Amino acid sequence: MVRPYASRLNDIEPFRVVEVLTRAKQLAAQGRDIVRLEAGEPDFSTAEPIVRAAQEALARGETHYSQAAGLPQLREAISRYYKTDYCLDISPERIMVTPGASGALLLISGLLLNPGDGILMTDPGYPCNRNFFRLVEGEGQLVPVGPEDRYQLTAAKAEAAWRDNTVGAIVASPANPTGEILSADELRELHALCEHNKGHLIVDEIYHGLDYNEKAASILSITDRAFVINSFSKYFGMTGWRLGWLVAPEDAIPHLERMAQNLFISMSTMGQFGALAAFEPETRAILDSRRDEFKRRRDFLLPELRRLGFTLPTTPAGALYLYAGIESFGQNSAEFCRTLLEEHGISITPGADFGRYRSDEHVRFAYTTSMERLEEAVLRLRKLFGG
Amino acid sequence: MVRPYASRLNDIEPFRVVEVLTRAKQLAAQGRDIVRLEAGEPDFSTAEPIVRAAQEALARGETHYSQAAGLPQLREAISRYYKTDYCLDISPERIMVTPGASGALLLISGLLLNPGDGILMTDPGYPCNRNFFRLVEGEGQLVPVGPEDRYQLTAAKAEAAWRDNTVGAIVASPANPTGEILSADELRELHALCEHNKGHLIVDEIYHGLDYNEKAASILSITDRAFVINSFSKYFGMTGWRLGWLVAPEDAIPHLERMAQNLFISMSTMGQFGALAAFEPETRAILDSRRDEFKRRRDFLLPELRRLGFTLPTTPAGALYLYAGIESFGQNSAEFCRTLLEEHGISITPGADFGRYRSDEHVRFAYTTSMERLEEAVLRLRKLFGG
Repeated sequence: MVRPYASRLNDIEPFRVVEVLTRAKQLAAQGRDIVRLEAGEPDFSTAEPIVRAAQEALARGETHYSQAAGLPQLREAISRYYKTDYCLDISPERIMVTPGASGALLLISGLLLNPGDGILMTDPGYPCNRNFFRLVEGEGQLVPVGPEDRYQLTAAKAEAAWRDNTVGAIVASPANPTGEILSADELRELHALCEHNKGHLIVDEIYHGLDYNEKAASILSITDRAFVINSFSKYFGMTGWRLGWLVAPEDAIPHLERMAQNLFISMSTMGQFGALAAFEPETRAILDSRRDEFKRRRDFLLPELRRLGFTLPTTPAGALYLYAGIESFGQNSAEFCRTLLEEHGISITPGADFGRYRSDEHVRFAYTTSMERLEEAVLRLRKLFGG
Repeated sequence: MVRPYASRLNDIEPFRVVEVLTRAKQLAAQGRDIVRLEAGEPDFSTAEPIVRAAQEALARGETHYSQAAGLPQLREAISRYYKTDYCLDISPERIMVTPGASGALLLISGLLLNPGDGILMTDPGYPCNRNFFRLVEGEGQLVPVGPEDRYQLTAAKAEAAWRDNTVGAIVASPANPTGEILSADELRELHALCEHNKGHLIVDEIYHGLDYNEKAASILSITDRAFVINSFSKYFGMTGWRLGWLVAPEDAIPHLERMAQNLFISMSTMGQFGALAAFEPETRAILDSRRDEFKRRRDFLLPELRRLGFTLPTTPAGALYLYAGIESFGQNSAEFCRTLLEEHGISITPGADFGRYRSDEHVRFAYTTSMERLEEAVLRLRKLFGG
């Protein structure tokens, strides 16, 4: 008999999309033709110049540990990216490369949360946030959001939800699972509220670059006190490389670096040499044309889903997702997703992955497959629901 | 004015070797000839078959997320490795690939520690352990060890140190910084003690394969209730890839997998395809000849340091290090290391990186450079100290 495992495990939920994905792969392996609309990653393989740069780094023997805060030349390249793409001067010293945006979330959680502290986050929102907070004995404080605020945390909602133990708020723009962005004005108001409450503002900008109407504003254009999480996974198409970055206030960097030395030692060295090529004009041209393809998919799938009876009150401005209401189908979301996958070969993610608020009435479609496959999905749905 | 950062930051110490390494690189960049004996990583670049396998995986487009518990074929390969190298049947289901041994430490910390809980560890020992524990509001409980027990945690010492809030013990065999191993009997006694106290036993086996006298015993030959941390970094020579693994009791795996889904999503996919090649006979032959080279270096450096006046009461059986007493030089270890680096171009790590117990009287030599450079270091030390 040994003692029970730690209590936090009772609160750490599975990332359900991973289970959907596993089951979808299983069915496909059995010969079923599954239209895969569950995965939060671009279907494109990593762009060739990035692949080539990593292969060359491997050939050169770049296989050793590198700096805990990231390759200096990569921190500089990210700094230049803020200059060219955002007209912002962000010192490389404020930028840390991390093992995915996940690594950035871990560092931020360790930095900001004492036991019992909480951070506001939207419900629905990225499910792992609250599990990172829980790991270090903090909590995610879920704020229900709906179409009236484009599923975003407004300053007014944050103010109403702020509690004695709240130490900050995390928002995502564009957001997962809703694809909605926060305007510069909305970000400014949130920042002002956090400052007023002596709290921290964390902005998840990992879907920047996948914005289809206008360029999403970065919180960095408003303040140098916020924490920004970004990633090479989405726009840059490097999910399997596990590289992200973090921009932090200057005074936080020594703490974050000390944590990174202990928790990570370093990130993948050859991977970072690959990432250096992500900023080359040749690569950017590939990435931009992929973004245009994602926009085409959104523009196709959104009206089709509406016609089929899904509720989509807003037009998501970015990311890879449509967060659709299924009220009209009279099934709860887990059941709905299971039927769709098992009987109709369409894999999508149940709302419960993203929170609790009306999650039974929502599903997430990820348009991370080709137009052809999206058309196939729509055909199958039409057979099922008419429309 | 924002609120202060979390209290744990006051307790998370820098990983000093990283600072030594940075300074050594700085001096080298200024044209100084520095003999680098500080780094805990093999000086060899990753073996060519591994590099080639990763390059090929990249060419095939293996750039997407993979499973949170690791590539199934890599888990199977690790399972086969336990069969061929240890005559042990370890199910792939009990093996999780992790982002370095660091990732395994994070998962284990999250699994075992409630706030206020402690885990026994040797002083001196791997410094990051206690910072992982602190991250989740637990603590490393340092147990001073010396040459009388070959710097290892014996069952008797663990029993004496066990407190009400102790939930387990972590040992390393071979150990960093001392290179000492635990015999099968010692492991068995530790396991019995932990069982008796309803505690968990964690064995860091990341230096397995780098054992120079006899093959180090794995705790897995004694019990299936222990946690084993292992790594592709040391014997397998893949530091910059950030891949390790974890073997856990069967009932822990679902919890660990749920944490991994949230904290990591996945490990580097192309990196794991590279790691698959680590077990090929062609690669193993390269790795074994490198191990022999490390042994040659140990056998050269150890008597030389003794002749120079360093205290080395035991003959370390593995790893990459000599943990040497400097009592006879009358300087504290930080000062000693600084002088050696700044004035004599030899970079070694001060004892304070590994704990508190007599750390001022010790330094760590890592024989992670060529025989030629080791000879150069000895020449310089001879000039300095005579001998």
